[in-house]
Amino acid sequence: MSTNSFGRMFTVTTWGESHGPALGATVDGCPPNVTLDADLIQVWLNQRKPGQNKNTTQRREADLVRIMSGVFEGKTTGMPIQLMIENTDQRSKDYSDIMNKFRPGHADITYWQKYGIRDYRGGGRSSARETAARVAAGGVAREAIKQIAPNIEISGYMVQMGDRKIDRSRFDSEAIHQNDFWCPDSVAAQEWEEYLTWLRKEDHNSVGAIIEVVARNVPAGLGAPVYGKIDTDIATAMMSINAVKGVEIGDGMAAASLTGRQNADEISMGPDGPEFSSNHAGGILGGISTGQDLVCRFAVKPTSSILSTRKTITKSGENTEIITVGRHDPCVGIRAVPVGEAMMACVILDHLLLHRGQVGENQGPIG
Amino acid sequence: MSTNSFGRMFTVTTWGESHGPALGATVDGCPPNVTLDADLIQVWLNQRKPGQNKNTTQRREADLVRIMSGVFEGKTTGMPIQLMIENTDQRSKDYSDIMNKFRPGHADITYWQKYGIRDYRGGGRSSARETAARVAAGGVAREAIKQIAPNIEISGYMVQMGDRKIDRSRFDSEAIHQNDFWCPDSVAAQEWEEYLTWLRKEDHNSVGAIIEVVARNVPAGLGAPVYGKIDTDIATAMMSINAVKGVEIGDGMAAASLTGRQNADEISMGPDGPEFSSNHAGGILGGISTGQDLVCRFAVKPTSSILSTRKTITKSGENTEIITVGRHDPCVGIRAVPVGEAMMACVILDHLLLHRGQVGENQGPIG
Amino acid sequence: MSTNSFGRMFTVTTWGESHGPALGATVDGCPPNVTLDADLIQVWLNQRKPGQNKNTTQRREADLVRIMSGVFEGKTTGMPIQLMIENTDQRSKDYSDIMNKFRPGHADITYWQKYGIRDYRGGGRSSARETAARVAAGGVAREAIKQIAPNIEISGYMVQMGDRKIDRSRFDSEAIHQNDFWCPDSVAAQEWEEYLTWLRKEDHNSVGAIIEVVARNVPAGLGAPVYGKIDTDIATAMMSINAVKGVEIGDGMAAASLTGRQNADEISMGPDGPEFSSNHAGGILGGISTGQDLVCRFAVKPTSSILSTRKTITKSGENTEIITVGRHDPCVGIRAVPVGEAMMACVILDHLLLHRGQVGENQGPIG
Amino acid sequence: MSTNSFGRMFTVTTWGESHGPALGATVDGCPPNVTLDADLIQVWLNQRKPGQNKNTTQRREADLVRIMSGVFEGKTTGMPIQLMIENTDQRSKDYSDIMNKFRPGHADITYWQKYGIRDYRGGGRSSARETAARVAAGGVAREAIKQIAPNIEISGYMVQMGDRKIDRSRFDSEAIHQNDFWCPDSVAAQEWEEYLTWLRKEDHNSVGAIIEVVARNVPAGLGAPVYGKIDTDIATAMMSINAVKGVEIGDGMAAASLTGRQNADEISMGPDGPEFSSNHAGGILGGISTGQDLVCRFAVKPTSSILSTRKTITKSGENTEIITVGRHDPCVGIRAVPVGEAMMACVILDHLLLHRGQVGENQGPIG
Repeated sequence: MSTNSFGRMFTVTTWGESHGPALGATVDGCPPNVTLDADLIQVWLNQRKPGQNKNTTQRREADLVRIMSGVFEGKTTGMPIQLMIENTDQRSKDYSDIMNKFRPGHADITYWQKYGIRDYRGGGRSSARETAARVAAGGVAREAIKQIAPNIEISGYMVQMGDRKIDRSRFDSEAIHQNDFWCPDSVAAQEWEEYLTWLRKEDHNSVGAIIEVVARNVPAGLGAPVYGKIDTDIATAMMSINAVKGVEIGDGMAAASLTGRQNADEISMGPDGPEFSSNHAGGILGGISTGQDLVCRFAVKPTSSILSTRKTITKSGENTEIITVGRHDPCVGIRAVPVGEAMMACVILDHLLLHRGQVGENQGPIG
Repeated sequence: MSTNSFGRMFTVTTWGESHGPALGATVDGCPPNVTLDADLIQVWLNQRKPGQNKNTTQRREADLVRIMSGVFEGKTTGMPIQLMIENTDQRSKDYSDIMNKFRPGHADITYWQKYGIRDYRGGGRSSARETAARVAAGGVAREAIKQIAPNIEISGYMVQMGDRKIDRSRFDSEAIHQNDFWCPDSVAAQEWEEYLTWLRKEDHNSVGAIIEVVARNVPAGLGAPVYGKIDTDIATAMMSINAVKGVEIGDGMAAASLTGRQNADEISMGPDGPEFSSNHAGGILGGISTGQDLVCRFAVKPTSSILSTRKTITKSGENTEIITVGRHDPCVGIRAVPVGEAMMACVILDHLLLHRGQVGENQGPIG
Repeated sequence: MSTNSFGRMFTVTTWGESHGPALGATVDGCPPNVTLDADLIQVWLNQRKPGQNKNTTQRREADLVRIMSGVFEGKTTGMPIQLMIENTDQRSKDYSDIMNKFRPGHADITYWQKYGIRDYRGGGRSSARETAARVAAGGVAREAIKQIAPNIEISGYMVQMGDRKIDRSRFDSEAIHQNDFWCPDSVAAQEWEEYLTWLRKEDHNSVGAIIEVVARNVPAGLGAPVYGKIDTDIATAMMSINAVKGVEIGDGMAAASLTGRQNADEISMGPDGPEFSSNHAGGILGGISTGQDLVCRFAVKPTSSILSTRKTITKSGENTEIITVGRHDPCVGIRAVPVGEAMMACVILDHLLLHRGQVGENQGPIG
Repeated sequence: MSTNSFGRMFTVTTWGESHGPALGATVDGCPPNVTLDADLIQVWLNQRKPGQNKNTTQRREADLVRIMSGVFEGKTTGMPIQLMIENTDQRSKDYSDIMNKFRPGHADITYWQKYGIRDYRGGGRSSARETAARVAAGGVAREAIKQIAPNIEISGYMVQMGDRKIDRSRFDSEAIHQNDFWCPDSVAAQEWEEYLTWLRKEDHNSVGAIIEVVARNVPAGLGAPVYGKIDTDIATAMMSINAVKGVEIGDGMAAASLTGRQNADEISMGPDGPEFSSNHAGGILGGISTGQDLVCRFAVKPTSSILSTRKTITKSGENTEIITVGRHDPCVGIRAVPVGEAMMACVILDHLLLHRGQVGENQGPIG
């Protein structure tokens, strides 16, 4: 019942602090005989790692992952896979300000109130660095999915930065990897670039974002009533990411504005099985996948560590002010994209394995 | 690892189908010596039960709950509490249409694809009737909370029906119980009434809604990194409710549009501890409660069972049409309000007990 | 994390007290499309039910099980199966003695110390009646096993009553069902009969027993390191039965006396796969089944409710004496036989489903 | 649901193989503010580590533990504690024999049958080296117990080697640490020394053992019905240790031979609460601690890796013979003593935390 674990069949426990010796993920339940080595995981970590461009934190971390167990001669053995990333750029600095004051919008105050102790160096366990462990675990999940359901594709991208949204009519999946923002709309990406530069340099501010993650070619039948719904598990996974404040499946909050006729995706028979006239449902009905694309979105709040003066209190209860100097992401949502993809991969693998255990194989062929 | 269970310390397993002999909840982990009898639970069930006014389904269910175990001489014993609600209005009717066709927007097709069998009478386990068991379990949670943290108040209400939102400047908590919609804005309630009547009678349609649930006087320190965050658990709880497509904490999806200066709630010292200049965070930082109001919202999609003709397929894969005759909610979001409250109560009790087990008592007094 | 639940994939939560309105089991994770009705479960309950002969408690309970959910038209649906047994023979009597005094050897004192409240009527939740729910759940497990691995046979029997052991050279599996003791040695059964009659009538005493449960035709590959070992799960299951004080796998405690040469079962190749020269291991190596018979034994202590005077204390801490008048089993081990079988069935089904989820199919064919 | 994890509140996940780069334990749920450093854990690891005397394996491992997370400035933070032990003595040798043949009595064959892949170097995950991780986790548990219930003492010792038992009349707790066998009877220890030397040098054989673990000053009230019983959890913990084939609580299997009058421990009122005339129950009634000593025993089978020729088969199904050359324990039970202590510590801490979460504090004072 570890509160640092998620997943039923594919169980990931992340551990480690921002400024401790290392962090990582203990991954249990990966099927045996999956091809795996550190390089296959590293490729995903490289997408998330800091210091890659001027739009993310300037902390420099190699984020090199080592596989400490569970792999033998390039194949998983079915045993726990220990993934370890050593922290290298733990810049020595003066923490006295953070040590005694609580940063507004930060977990500083709640960790203190709950535990009576906190690792004040860089946020400890509440740091976004924890998500590196998720990305590593997601890398394992992807390799296992490749073996079980090789057609599944998972794609994440940013659809909104601050109040600037992409124009869906300009959606171009190739653009996603051609800008610093995982933005499928290259025009929007250009505007975001200018906006973020101003925000960072002039305004000493940060901004929120919305990320969308889509999984294609997911077989029908994944998920289970009523607390094992795959949409519930996706929501759980995404909401557990640092700074996430909202999660949507399919039409999400906008579903409230629809009528029944608008919302229900009509069904017809296609050459390969049921087809749907639309995907308001985000690929999930009754918590179980329909075979359509799984679609989710999540909102990431703006980084609270900013170069502006904010009112706060000290541990001894005195009113004071704080300004957070440091190497922080002006839009932490950018680096949340590979994290969202990784969480989606973990959820899908978990449900592929769970489904196999529950019903053996698809039970209800249509037609 | 039952997929029909939720909660770590206060564990609720719901069971039962819409048209079976009964449904209920097996509730484990309720502390001993909590005052409890069926009447204390019934009061909440009465709020959710169908057939109370013309805006909800006309199915008539007494929804009488019986306590089958775990209570002795009016007190809980610490043993599992079995709550059972017998189904009484299982109207015999012709199911042949539903039996062979899949209703668009329904779990019909996914249950069939996953299990190869489904209880087609009224949706079986995917029916909104399952939420009666949640409300009953929530009633137990409320009595236990009363003993552990008696100041906690949980309040749910509708803030949007279709695209019609309440006007927050007219927010009146007393209005909530004075209309059929749990609407805190009596002007909006009047408009919704007219709109829903038209939708039901003229348009043969249904509509979605957004519900907000607030918990007041929740102590600081509930929640735990990183997959035991109280916001994650709230999201999990709400997303597991039938027809929910999005969940928000605090500013939710709108947090994406904010800058860091706008979003971070500033802190000052008040007479009873830390105070915050605002509550964009929804009472949660780093997954742990701050002592502010916990605020969440969730969107409920429109009922897919409507009196309009829709395209679909049969089990044997033929294209056809369906029209769902029956006693369905034109806005199922209305009856989701007490369900949302119940889920919030379960999550809070769970975290009160978990916190006690984890750290004994609040560890970090401020000032 | 309900402490009244066991099983990973096939999860059983038992509920109910000895003298409440009912008791039962909430069973989740049964695969869909398993043939099931109440009669198929009742047959096993009838084997355990009290009052069948003079060697068990004279309490009369019909122990009729009702299926409240999860079965539709004679087939399981994959949804939770609620099994309910109403208590009928709750004889009204004077509980004042038990209410204020603690029976030596009983859970009276520990339930009081832990919970500060207890259902003193017949032991509440600590009563052996709780095992009826296990037997009912085991009935479901057996039907599911029949579908997945139809050759598996589970057989329980008593091998020792008090210090009187069976003679293994007289082992006759047909004898098991021809006496009141599930004894495979009809000569021993006759001696036990005489001994127990004397113990009950003359000595006003009770006695312990050892039960052996064997599962045949279990496929190789069930179980998982290192806390999901099938032997660990069998030990967990058996030790959780009321009054059990010891559990053995294969040679059990006697393995301590063996040397490595004596203990290790040699392997040779047979027509259908590996064969073993002996079965000291009880069919399990490294926590994973070998394909040999699974063999376990457990010891049941003597009933502490006896007609003899015993020293004890009252709730207010005064020294006193107690004599337990009532309808108690002189050897509760007898009725533990079907319980042991039921637990074995639950563990095996759980591992069949888990294995399917973990590795899809057997991975390592030999030869 | 990791099958490599145990514990509800204090959750330990062990990982790593005998001959991989490292092994360790991911420990979650340790309360914050517990004094902890590597030295406090190392002291226990040193008791288990190999190569300390001629009676255990001659493999030389420093077994140095590193704390990778969860501790800040010498105190636990409430975050996951990662304990890592690097493998240093991975002697390069010819594994061709083990790679293709299955050692009788070993997990070789079952791992192969289940996973279709196994790390044949030294047994991989089925090696007794896995228990080093348990001992490290137990070290954390001991420090937390020290803070919560400082009077608790845990003591393990060997009571039988082969068929040679200690004489309980010579029991001397100081002797335990004065011989290589954790033997509380120094006369027996001398005999065992001679016997084991002969077994190892002359007979090329190994032998089993029985270990007893006692916990003193455990408060009443730990444990919970009916699958959260503390005796069930002790059985689970001990049975999960490599090579364990039987577990007993209190009188254990011998309870079968007792009558009700002999078995039930009578109760009287002492100056500090209830006192018992004896401890047949091993300190547990109804799965909940009584305040008496917790007493358990477990049997460890003889090592199957012996220098004698044994019949077996190859992966391709041919009959053959094998002789296991290597550095193996002639009586692996010796090094199981600190492992048993560690498991007891983990179970007790888990129940201390669970009890606190369940009932806040002891509810039912007597007298």
